[in-house]
Amino acid sequence: MDRDGRFGEQVVTPDIGEDIFALAAKIFPICRSITGNGVRQTLREIGAHIALEAHEVPTGTQVFDWTVPREWNIRDAYIKDSSGRKVVDFAQSSLHVMSYSVPVRQRLSLAELKQHVHTLPEQPDLIPYRTSYYAENWAFCMAHRQLEGLREETYEVVIDSSLQDGSLTYGECVHQGETEDEFLLSAHVCHPSLANDNCSGLALLTHLAKKMSGLRTHYTYRFLFAPGTIGAITWLARNEERSRRIKHGLVISMVGDGGGPTYKKSRRGDAAIDRAMIHVLRHAGPAATVVDFSPYGYDERQYCSPGFNLPVGLFQRSRYGSIPQYHTSADNLDFIRPEHLAQSFAAIANTIDVIENDAVYSNTNPKCEPQLGKRGLYGAIGGSSDAATDQMAMLWVLNFSDGTRSLLDIAERSNLPFAVVRRIARILEEHGLLARCQTSAE
Amino acid sequence: MDRDGRFGEQVVTPDIGEDIFALAAKIFPICRSITGNGVRQTLREIGAHIALEAHEVPTGTQVFDWTVPREWNIRDAYIKDSSGRKVVDFAQSSLHVMSYSVPVRQRLSLAELKQHVHTLPEQPDLIPYRTSYYAENWAFCMAHRQLEGLREETYEVVIDSSLQDGSLTYGECVHQGETEDEFLLSAHVCHPSLANDNCSGLALLTHLAKKMSGLRTHYTYRFLFAPGTIGAITWLARNEERSRRIKHGLVISMVGDGGGPTYKKSRRGDAAIDRAMIHVLRHAGPAATVVDFSPYGYDERQYCSPGFNLPVGLFQRSRYGSIPQYHTSADNLDFIRPEHLAQSFAAIANTIDVIENDAVYSNTNPKCEPQLGKRGLYGAIGGSSDAATDQMAMLWVLNFSDGTRSLLDIAERSNLPFAVVRRIARILEEHGLLARCQTSAE
Amino acid sequence: MDRDGRFGEQVVTPDIGEDIFALAAKIFPICRSITGNGVRQTLREIGAHIALEAHEVPTGTQVFDWTVPREWNIRDAYIKDSSGRKVVDFAQSSLHVMSYSVPVRQRLSLAELKQHVHTLPEQPDLIPYRTSYYAENWAFCMAHRQLEGLREETYEVVIDSSLQDGSLTYGECVHQGETEDEFLLSAHVCHPSLANDNCSGLALLTHLAKKMSGLRTHYTYRFLFAPGTIGAITWLARNEERSRRIKHGLVISMVGDGGGPTYKKSRRGDAAIDRAMIHVLRHAGPAATVVDFSPYGYDERQYCSPGFNLPVGLFQRSRYGSIPQYHTSADNLDFIRPEHLAQSFAAIANTIDVIENDAVYSNTNPKCEPQLGKRGLYGAIGGSSDAATDQMAMLWVLNFSDGTRSLLDIAERSNLPFAVVRRIARILEEHGLLARCQTSAE
Repeated sequence: MDRDGRFGEQVVTPDIGEDIFALAAKIFPICRSITGNGVRQTLREIGAHIALEAHEVPTGTQVFDWTVPREWNIRDAYIKDSSGRKVVDFAQSSLHVMSYSVPVRQRLSLAELKQHVHTLPEQPDLIPYRTSYYAENWAFCMAHRQLEGLREETYEVVIDSSLQDGSLTYGECVHQGETEDEFLLSAHVCHPSLANDNCSGLALLTHLAKKMSGLRTHYTYRFLFAPGTIGAITWLARNEERSRRIKHGLVISMVGDGGGPTYKKSRRGDAAIDRAMIHVLRHAGPAATVVDFSPYGYDERQYCSPGFNLPVGLFQRSRYGSIPQYHTSADNLDFIRPEHLAQSFAAIANTIDVIENDAVYSNTNPKCEPQLGKRGLYGAIGGSSDAATDQMAMLWVLNFSDGTRSLLDIAERSNLPFAVVRRIARILEEHGLLARCQTSAE
Repeated sequence: MDRDGRFGEQVVTPDIGEDIFALAAKIFPICRSITGNGVRQTLREIGAHIALEAHEVPTGTQVFDWTVPREWNIRDAYIKDSSGRKVVDFAQSSLHVMSYSVPVRQRLSLAELKQHVHTLPEQPDLIPYRTSYYAENWAFCMAHRQLEGLREETYEVVIDSSLQDGSLTYGECVHQGETEDEFLLSAHVCHPSLANDNCSGLALLTHLAKKMSGLRTHYTYRFLFAPGTIGAITWLARNEERSRRIKHGLVISMVGDGGGPTYKKSRRGDAAIDRAMIHVLRHAGPAATVVDFSPYGYDERQYCSPGFNLPVGLFQRSRYGSIPQYHTSADNLDFIRPEHLAQSFAAIANTIDVIENDAVYSNTNPKCEPQLGKRGLYGAIGGSSDAATDQMAMLWVLNFSDGTRSLLDIAERSNLPFAVVRRIARILEEHGLLARCQTSAE
Repeated sequence: MDRDGRFGEQVVTPDIGEDIFALAAKIFPICRSITGNGVRQTLREIGAHIALEAHEVPTGTQVFDWTVPREWNIRDAYIKDSSGRKVVDFAQSSLHVMSYSVPVRQRLSLAELKQHVHTLPEQPDLIPYRTSYYAENWAFCMAHRQLEGLREETYEVVIDSSLQDGSLTYGECVHQGETEDEFLLSAHVCHPSLANDNCSGLALLTHLAKKMSGLRTHYTYRFLFAPGTIGAITWLARNEERSRRIKHGLVISMVGDGGGPTYKKSRRGDAAIDRAMIHVLRHAGPAATVVDFSPYGYDERQYCSPGFNLPVGLFQRSRYGSIPQYHTSADNLDFIRPEHLAQSFAAIANTIDVIENDAVYSNTNPKCEPQLGKRGLYGAIGGSSDAATDQMAMLWVLNFSDGTRSLLDIAERSNLPFAVVRRIARILEEHGLLARCQTSAE
């Protein structure tokens, strides 16, 4: 446990992967879309763990260039063959109905039905995920192999949905820090039964907020669970002034598979969050990939639009669109694993640790090296598993703590993990060899 | 055809390679040197296509550290064996006589003759190209194999040349643009029958000037056809004040072979012409080579001398000196091809297109993305062959058009061709989503 | 011989490697430590070649965070078996006794003896080098194979040493230059019979100072022979004001083996000494390695501590700790070679040549190239072995001598050796084509 109940490595507990997985599994079956009761039900599950405030924004509200759409809800949907057998049943998978499908109740020939069916001919066993938010339409999604097996007959098609004035829903959980400067953590809540994209992200952020509860932090942490695109736009439109407090931010999605990890930099490219996350991932293993910002992806598109240009990056495992499971029924609970969720959690927690604890120190004894031996600092440090690394870290911290370089600067320069540099800095500070400088206002 | 009759992609016509080749073939046989009637005759052929002004600068004129030399002309030259047979005949190739050879009419033994013969022992079938501008001398150039076949006998040697006061000749064609800022295009006119070096460059620039005629341009384009080194020095000495208007420039030579393309950066290294040409070549194919400025090569040596330091680069296919045909009789009309000339023409035209059309825009809707769908901009754009590329280009242009980045900046950042970025910017401008910023004065 | 008796390439004489080796061999047997008569005897040998001033600093003197320790001397030491045979004899190798071992005269069982013996089990034939400066203790060092051969019997152990108030000794030789700005050359004098580490460095610097004697230099050269760590700290503590004159510096150690060469940059990383040494090593051969500063190594740790941050790098052949001979009896006179010492000497002398002679020139004829031919500079330059290189060097120096770039800048840009660029600059200066600019004060 870190001193003074501050946020630190203690949040990475052994069971964290299982805890995240359990919540992801619980919200997996819910049929979410950019509006509607699926979102509300998901937020209720999240709210069982953390203090979540749900916001409702009425249909028709203008949010910058966009308008909050009508609310979509669905109760049931199926395709019955002439024998009355349901060949497609929404109750079995929320992916079976194209999101925002308008209500329909018809009898159709196979040829007519096919005009309203999406499949993936190259992945014939998978159901695709499709939406039509802003063009009124209806469709079913199914496995291509199943479609090919349908006989020429008359089908009864029912989509018991509604598209009418209502509201858009998003949830916020705020962890108050010592300052009003904010760290934004954002996950989209609009995808239906896709485990990695983004039940994994919703569940991870929920447990991060839960672990953070009661701990002291410098920054105020805002956890945002909002529908993709329109939800982020709505939040920004309603919080334009507040958004200026955001000093660091991460969009989180697809954090449960075994690929990556991948970090996409903020539009600024050299923000503190970029440097911190890149540092953490480089020490997490050789497989980490860092990509420059591009204006395509998740809600970093909105946070990093030129009128905001917030320091918000994107953390994922496999990169969106780079894996065959992406936006199909193969993105199910078998695709995500507790151990991957735990690794993702640790990467994010360690990045927050860097952001919270980076500081500039001055060597109080800058002329030549201090004599470490007479202070008992030469050789093994009590309890340390790696005396040689600690010894080198002491030399690095002493030499480069000249009032201009932060601990992260030193960690980068020395190729030592921030956690080691930070621990050594505390030991040196306790021995009076290091003094913390005033950190410059951001 | 580009709007408003402005310079654009329309100048790259299907027959352009054949047109350039035809002119190169026509001027190929002429015996050019740094002065004399060969240059005048070449300029007359060029002047049959464009409005060319020929300048005559008298022998003895001081041009910076140099003096315009005496004028050299040649009517005939041969070596006859004792039977009266011409074993070497200037009428067959202008390469047979070393440029600036003084007149001679002698009978010589083979041993004496060999003192005045240049060959290429390692390329025994080729005639070398040799000059002696500033040391009075005479020599023949021939195939080494032919020299080895000469018998011991008395040879009659005749060079019917003259070296006397006259003038140095260069030609200029000026395309008036909307501003007095200039774009210099320069090709050397002093090499005799070498097809690539530089009949190709002379013919390409002639047809570029011809295509540009009647089109509107921002810059004033100066096409300069001058002898190498002394011609560029003479032009700079006579136009020192005017040279300050040159904002961009290219030296063009060896543009008809199948190698490269090669771009040698200006001495500045980061001039607009450098960025534009590098961008165009990177999208032209994987074989393009970019090299830093060095003070050896063509007339960029003079334009980039420290007292001028003009933003002038060098465009070639194969790099000078890097190919066995260089400065030999193998640099003939078989060595250049219409398709290579057309590619070179396109590279230069596209570079001019970047220079003419690069501009800084501002996203009029910078807070979050605009809703492209309600404007019909989401999905396929009418007439576009690549809807996905266009979609991404829209996102890039919108996100990065923040009043500080130009279209070329965005093209470089997004790795999209400038032509795509520029077209998308116009569409977005037409929809009111983009506004052109005042371009800063250069 | 360089003009005017200035320091130049003439210091690299054919016998220099043999001369350095001879001195290294002479001081090799002496038992040095951080204090004591071994250091004094070594300085006397060095003082036989150059004007060396020895300084004595009393035990107990406070030097920054450190205190000058008691003086250690040793006369004899051995381990005798029960038959009276000396199984270990200090007279055979000064490595046999751990440096700063307190006096001992005991009879011990083998088991008791082993508590006070250091060996290298993985290099069983070598004697390790060990010290215990700041913890009172005693020990012998021997080959592991020899230890394993000792029988169970009673051993007589004698270390006839003394540890008492005295002084720390270091030597300085100053070559007065035309200015008070200093170039520091520093070698540690505290290691006992280790040939490469650092008899080689002591001998090289001695002969460099000897060669420099009588030659004119811009900088004042300070040769410092001091015990590692405490010696450098002591010098800095006593010369804090003077240290500000140090504009360039090198720590020299392990310069006689066939590895590397290796240059470790100063903490600044872009100091003139860094650029000069890197340039010289890149032209010395492909094996040169350049590493960034790190706060571990030799006395650059003190010179580059943040309170001094002097522009001092480290020159070595093999890097410390990277070779099996490091700090063992295998670092003997067989491990160093005259030819390697000569190469190391040349690298350092050439680096000094760059530092002494780098200067900024202006092309007096900056508009277009000057006509080299009329000055006899076109083609071969008298006495030059490489006319083509000289020709290119002339073009580079003329084009880039614009009053902002130094000869080293031009050498780096053109990839030509500084010595060539410097020679060509003098020729151009003699022809009035180049004028030396006022060099900016450092």
